[in-house]
Amino acid sequence: MAHTASRGPGRPPAAKAAETRERIMRAAREVFSELGYDAATFQAIAIRADLTRPAINHYFASKRLLYQEVMEQTNGMLIESAVQHSQRESALAGRMRAFLRAAVEAQGEDRSVAAFLATSVLESQRHPDLNQEDNESLTFTRGFVTSAIKDAIEGGEIRPDVDVDAAAEMLMAVMWGLGFYAGFVGDQERLITITDQFLQLLNGQMWRAADPA
Amino acid sequence: MAHTASRGPGRPPAAKAAETRERIMRAAREVFSELGYDAATFQAIAIRADLTRPAINHYFASKRLLYQEVMEQTNGMLIESAVQHSQRESALAGRMRAFLRAAVEAQGEDRSVAAFLATSVLESQRHPDLNQEDNESLTFTRGFVTSAIKDAIEGGEIRPDVDVDAAAEMLMAVMWGLGFYAGFVGDQERLITITDQFLQLLNGQMWRAADPA
Repeated sequence: MAHTASRGPGRPPAAKAAETRERIMRAAREVFSELGYDAATFQAIAIRADLTRPAINHYFASKRLLYQEVMEQTNGMLIESAVQHSQRESALAGRMRAFLRAAVEAQGEDRSVAAFLATSVLESQRHPDLNQEDNESLTFTRGFVTSAIKDAIEGGEIRPDVDVDAAAEMLMAVMWGLGFYAGFVGDQERLITITDQFLQLLNGQMWRAADPA
Repeated sequence: MAHTASRGPGRPPAAKAAETRERIMRAAREVFSELGYDAATFQAIAIRADLTRPAINHYFASKRLLYQEVMEQTNGMLIESAVQHSQRESALAGRMRAFLRAAVEAQGEDRSVAAFLATSVLESQRHPDLNQEDNESLTFTRGFVTSAIKDAIEGGEIRPDVDVDAAAEMLMAVMWGLGFYAGFVGDQERLITITDQFLQLLNGQMWRAADPA
């Protein structure tokens, strides 16, 4: 969230410029995730931000650059922050819980965060020029789950013959599904409930019949 | 897949007409999932189907109608078929396994199936006129997992205090994530691997340390 005023253009006072940039990025995140990259025009973003179209152009030279800045910011707000939270935990389930709770919290502050990141994977398929390398949110998440699984194997927490890459991809697909759910299906309360259900499944608490009929 | 020839127009021989409709729908499914509804023009679909644009118009009066037919067909190919397979099983894990394996098989026959269904949920948010009611693939999947969980509770297979709706939504989000993975990230071999990983997790086979270090 911390945009240094030095990145804003010269004309408006620095603090005001940073605030306007922030307003544009928030509006752009909403419009990109609601309409998709193609349909998200500067005009639509200007209306959402309650600014003129030239004002958007003043801060962002192209839609592609605006998209990339929103992508970096949103990755920071949700995924990087969630990874940091998870690093305070040691066990795999604890790390996943910390990651998902931080992600749910970021989503509670801005409902377009999950929708934006979830659709960014589609957008990078549909517009290969949007990302120089792989999609960043996939890369970050993959790194997080891979190291969490490796540590869990080293610590004897999970079976040593687990296929690390396959398990990591599976957890990534699950988190992506939760992200889509958060962005396009359920409200925040529902998201908290289903995230808890997944953590129970991960802990093996759900399917054990405590008291079979 | 069975399109009765009576639905084709009069001019071409009936069998040929059914074949052309099928070719258009397959091309449309690919183009809709690759480009999204907005960017998928009849022109782009015609090129993919190796037909002229008027030929598409001859079979489908509007993009909206074409989209809805593709949606119904794709739901039938993947979700309805997967639900049928799952009904031969009794236990929850067995049903989920049968469902996911049938879905993986349908995806193996046509790689655009999962991508189309996964993005259809976005499209119904972005274009509310595309579906008269809720998104069909969500409705079918929700019905399947809800009844599977209810049966598992009645049969004493899972804890009686499990929140049925929340658990169903969680499994739906997971399957949606697998669908996106299948459509936009991994190849068929990878999909089989991560689906197996999820089934192991569901069975509690993964995280138990068989032999802690």
